Amino acid sequence: MTDASAPAPSQVRLSLASAVRPSADGSFDAEASAEWTIAGRPSGGYLLAIMGRAAAAITEPAQVVACSAHFLRSPSTGPVEVRTEVLRRGRSVSQVRVGMSQGGRACVEALMTTSILSGDDVARFDGGVPVLQPVPFQDGTRLAPMSPDGFRVPMLDQVDMRLDPECSGVTQGKPTGRGRLSGWIELLGEEGFDPVSLLYAVDAFPPATIDTSVLSWAPTVELTAYIRAVPAPGPVRILTRARLVSAEWVDETCDVWDVTGRLVAQASQLAKVPSG
Amino acid sequence: MTDASAPAPSQVRLSLASAVRPSADGSFDAEASAEWTIAGRPSGGYLLAIMGRAAAAITEPAQVVACSAHFLRSPSTGPVEVRTEVLRRGRSVSQVRVGMSQGGRACVEALMTTSILSGDDVARFDGGVPVLQPVPFQDGTRLAPMSPDGFRVPMLDQVDMRLDPECSGVTQGKPTGRGRLSGWIELLGEEGFDPVSLLYAVDAFPPATIDTSVLSWAPTVELTAYIRAVPAPGPVRILTRARLVSAEWVDETCDVWDVTGRLVAQASQLAKVPSG
Repeated sequence: MTDASAPAPSQVRLSLASAVRPSADGSFDAEASAEWTIAGRPSGGYLLAIMGRAAAAITEPAQVVACSAHFLRSPSTGPVEVRTEVLRRGRSVSQVRVGMSQGGRACVEALMTTSILSGDDVARFDGGVPVLQPVPFQDGTRLAPMSPDGFRVPMLDQVDMRLDPECSGVTQGKPTGRGRLSGWIELLGEEGFDPVSLLYAVDAFPPATIDTSVLSWAPTVELTAYIRAVPAPGPVRILTRARLVSAEWVDETCDVWDVTGRLVAQASQLAKVPSG
Repeated sequence: MTDASAPAPSQVRLSLASAVRPSADGSFDAEASAEWTIAGRPSGGYLLAIMGRAAAAITEPAQVVACSAHFLRSPSTGPVEVRTEVLRRGRSVSQVRVGMSQGGRACVEALMTTSILSGDDVARFDGGVPVLQPVPFQDGTRLAPMSPDGFRVPMLDQVDMRLDPECSGVTQGKPTGRGRLSGWIELLGEEGFDPVSLLYAVDAFPPATIDTSVLSWAPTVELTAYIRAVPAPGPVRILTRARLVSAEWVDETCDVWDVTGRLVAQASQLAKVPSG
């Protein structure tokens, strides 16, 4: 199969693809776009961006600073409903329950804390933040929207996702064995990321387990993200690391920096290793 | 003030202090014990242990493997209500919403994933797990239940909590500046920890920020824990690390190993730096 047989990709910017429309009583309608999918299913982080827009809207002018999500079942592309309930509305911090469902079936449940992220909230201690070697965006290997065997990943037409040279061997099935992937993500057609679209960024990279020799992919059960700052315009720098892979469960972390080198998001996720 | 003026501590084991009694419709009654407090308020991790018992009971025979909690307000000691709702009941994995309230006011909201933790789920990759130098339990400095100025921390009469020599300077106000605390926790009067009481362990240590020079304490807004294995009997080894402290938010991680050196729990938390 060649590229010529595939439909020309249409550009659907994340800010539009994650938009929510208020319906009633703290509920919102949204549309899970077919252009933000992998293997026919919407990216998990993309779903969190939709849910994050609803949480931010209901606690306006706040932004999501903490998001803890449990994935029950993957929705299909198409209409989804997002229901919010403000659990506590505080002067500087609010807490919201957010659920995404489709056709009356619960798909993703989350708790989100929102607050106002000020631009001048500088780091006073960062001794626990991983150090990532600088690699220019243009030196990365872009993940192709179309694999050599004709398998199209629509999401990769919407972003320019690049692996650093030191880990790009995974694209040829050559892991380093360290369980670490680093690189860049740029949102095509957008100036950059905002705090909510960082919820997409923390789950966008391939799983760090593909850089081990023991596991390729496992479905995410839980994902927690902390948004630490409003990112500067431009692409973001990503580091994902597998921590512990057992026969049944695997966890990995993701750290995200903006182009100025500021840490803007941190996340961890737990996934269930497929049995048999 | 001397020890003689304080009431003799009574031993209330964590397994009893975190017990839940089914009331109706997935709800449970519990009692937040005055013996598991710091500064008059129940320890956050202790509250999660109560909530975890309810989640495990409603999805029996499962154990909590992932817990994401948002803290709305601290309950007083005394009766609390725990309400559970099973969001998805699967063959091997279930997902539960768990809320703790007191007098009708929501205190802690959580989402928990439960499953059966098998004892033979060995690590296939652990390249992302921090390495902690071995320090024998008896070499640690025990945190005293009564501070020199007569301030009693009831929880420290229920556990033997010890800091490794390399970081025990924090007890004399001498941080290393690295933002790392390591040591041990033993539950007095119990054989050891079970998966649910590990939810207490991940939040029991003093905040790692006291080993920096920029911040002492901040109230936890979000805490996520992954329980990776059933711990062997005995005390557990703890490592907490501050990651990024900004003017408004701080996050830290906690890793827990059992006496055999097996990683049994991992957690991260986000806290709001007090303003002014």
